Amino acid sequence: MTEAVDLLINARWVVPVDDAESVLEHHAVAVCDGRIHAVLPQHEARTSISARRTVELRDHVLIPGLVNAHTHAAMALLRGIADDLPLMRWLQEAIWPAESRHVSDAFVRDGTLLAAAEMLRGGVTTCNEMYFFPDAAAQAFERMGMRAVLGVTVIDFPTPYAADADDYLRKGLEARDRWRGHPLFEFSIAPHAPYTVSDASLERVASLAAELDCTIHMHVHETAHEVEESLARHGVRPLARLASLGLLGPGFLGVHVVHVDDHDIALLAHHGCSIAHCPTSNMKLASGIAPIAAMHEAGLRIGLGTDGSASNNRLDLFEEMRQAALLAKVAGGDASVLPARSALRMATRDAAEAIGLGGRIGTIEPGKLADLCAVDLGGADMQPCYDPVSHLVYVAGRQQVSHVWVGGEARVEGGVLQLHLDNSELIATASLWQTRIES
Amino acid sequence: MTEAVDLLINARWVVPVDDAESVLEHHAVAVCDGRIHAVLPQHEARTSISARRTVELRDHVLIPGLVNAHTHAAMALLRGIADDLPLMRWLQEAIWPAESRHVSDAFVRDGTLLAAAEMLRGGVTTCNEMYFFPDAAAQAFERMGMRAVLGVTVIDFPTPYAADADDYLRKGLEARDRWRGHPLFEFSIAPHAPYTVSDASLERVASLAAELDCTIHMHVHETAHEVEESLARHGVRPLARLASLGLLGPGFLGVHVVHVDDHDIALLAHHGCSIAHCPTSNMKLASGIAPIAAMHEAGLRIGLGTDGSASNNRLDLFEEMRQAALLAKVAGGDASVLPARSALRMATRDAAEAIGLGGRIGTIEPGKLADLCAVDLGGADMQPCYDPVSHLVYVAGRQQVSHVWVGGEARVEGGVLQLHLDNSELIATASLWQTRIES
Repeated sequence: MTEAVDLLINARWVVPVDDAESVLEHHAVAVCDGRIHAVLPQHEARTSISARRTVELRDHVLIPGLVNAHTHAAMALLRGIADDLPLMRWLQEAIWPAESRHVSDAFVRDGTLLAAAEMLRGGVTTCNEMYFFPDAAAQAFERMGMRAVLGVTVIDFPTPYAADADDYLRKGLEARDRWRGHPLFEFSIAPHAPYTVSDASLERVASLAAELDCTIHMHVHETAHEVEESLARHGVRPLARLASLGLLGPGFLGVHVVHVDDHDIALLAHHGCSIAHCPTSNMKLASGIAPIAAMHEAGLRIGLGTDGSASNNRLDLFEEMRQAALLAKVAGGDASVLPARSALRMATRDAAEAIGLGGRIGTIEPGKLADLCAVDLGGADMQPCYDPVSHLVYVAGRQQVSHVWVGGEARVEGGVLQLHLDNSELIATASLWQTRIES
Repeated sequence: MTEAVDLLINARWVVPVDDAESVLEHHAVAVCDGRIHAVLPQHEARTSISARRTVELRDHVLIPGLVNAHTHAAMALLRGIADDLPLMRWLQEAIWPAESRHVSDAFVRDGTLLAAAEMLRGGVTTCNEMYFFPDAAAQAFERMGMRAVLGVTVIDFPTPYAADADDYLRKGLEARDRWRGHPLFEFSIAPHAPYTVSDASLERVASLAAELDCTIHMHVHETAHEVEESLARHGVRPLARLASLGLLGPGFLGVHVVHVDDHDIALLAHHGCSIAHCPTSNMKLASGIAPIAAMHEAGLRIGLGTDGSASNNRLDLFEEMRQAALLAKVAGGDASVLPARSALRMATRDAAEAIGLGGRIGTIEPGKLADLCAVDLGGADMQPCYDPVSHLVYVAGRQQVSHVWVGGEARVEGGVLQLHLDNSELIATASLWQTRIES
């Protein structure tokens, strides 16, 4: 008597990122109807499971698909356009002018295709997205078969996308209506930052998020300047202002959260908020070092994010895992802070929970969607391997990602995208945009 | 009338790391008798050069071979054996016990082969090595065709290699004599650290280095504890002690140099010393953040190093370039600190000068040895590319290294090692050692 399933994956190690922090050797993951059906020893699977397809991963570790808790995917087209500048000059002199000249429906579709290809090849199966033209982004993510939470962006200045806060909200909510029920997408409300959105707009965001049961996705306390400016303009720190406007709650995801004191952390913890930690971006823009150890201790859920390609400059959660672990150790003066298993959890389970998808993705457990990533630890540069979780964080890179599944569908096999879209198309499109942007 | 050369490399970009910080487009590098013969526009090369072999690198940037200013290559066999521990516990509870049980001639030969393969594939053509059994290391580097400065290690406690400081020095100098004149090797004197070598031994090191015209390669001011202990035992900070013992000078390379005050930096600058900066190791062991911006300002030469695989856990100078740039920015609160071009220089020219090989390697200039590294920026994940130097540091990784030459000999082509040693041999050997070490 065997059970029939669609797919059986036999892996040298399976790291489900479960409560027990299991590292399962020679286990199999059975997938049926796009969901994880069972996780069991390979010798049991051989007698109890009959699979339409079996994938053998002899030297690999199978982990949950990585979850990028914060990105602006289409900014892939601005990758490396301005480096080595501080945040406000980078925004005001480089990024905002380039965006105001070039961002369009086509820019967002093409940039998001490029970013989704990069993320999928690097094991990222879901991203939490904040940008303009969410319809175009959704079209791109749909074409690539990648899961996303799409932000209904709100900002109090005009862009080629929308004229004012009402216009952003109206357009974003219309996009949400068009894609409602799509298996790959959820929507959040994404006010850009405390310094770019008014009290009135933020109050609308709070009431809409409550009404529509959406998460809120917002940059907050990224720089010391942002906090000072809020004190000068509003008499309170940004998080206190957001609390008084009703934005904080279990659905609130604060991005960056670098310049926070004990009171700010207690406020976030009191409201059950989540954090998207973007260590590379915070370092590259010299924003500062987020107090991750203190926030973990306060019980905050912390997911990892890449931020956009203009401030990173790669959408690579392997880099963010390593960076988060290294940065927390040196900042805390304690090498035992943020061990490898915590970094892996922040890039999978905790990020999934932080963006509101914890019930569906983020671990390898029966009933969850089969969003999976296989990493080949068999190469010479990976030897010896005393601990596969250590190697995932401190040794491997995204180039070791061999297989990626989203909802049980193979998106990457043998390190190659399994889509009707080839690299030459992506490269040619990026090249056209580069010519336009440089002219 | 054309000039005959052995090899002509046509590259989309050549970045010679010269004084002018040139980025040459569509240039060619001509190689003859293992040295760089000319750097010239491709259209000129077509009419003036006749090459026995031509390599076309249409989407690539050609840079000097990377120079790893500090490593313990054979520790590749201990990669990831103990993570998330502070330096002294990591040394005393994990590394030193493992080394005392396992380090041997065979361990060093096999570990160095594994490390050299990893470094060459990642574009590293030279390393500055400090470990035991330098004969075994030299045999491995010779087999791999990799350039190295080999340390005559000195330490005041017994290991399976030697009994006491005199024994270390005698064995190391004998090895130096055996390999004298080998085109790939130089030797340094490498006292381990201020806290493991006595005054008497350090005085011998100073006089030997002067007599033999060797560089000195030494861990120094790595942790706050090291500085405190020196104050308690010797009444002075470690660098002041080294100065009074005659070790500081233009041939002195201090490794880590994390816990230094203005006086320490002035002392190093006064003596014309060099620094090996190992940002990943300093972060992973929570040693601290070296004040790179201040040391640059004081005029110190700073090369980048990976440290050994047990504290990194990869021998990857692309990671160190990115990490050095990111860490200096966030530490200085200024995103313009340590721009991409400075990180590239620290991994090539400045590292070469710091280890005493500045006259022979480190830039792409006529007369220098043809140690070269080509990086393919043509992949979809690299697009668009507004600035190849930015991409080298912030976007590319060692997996983009396509070609590596050492002294004009191809060591890597198409990303694959060109040696009579295949990956399966390296993997099998590492696996044998893992079994032995874990037992």
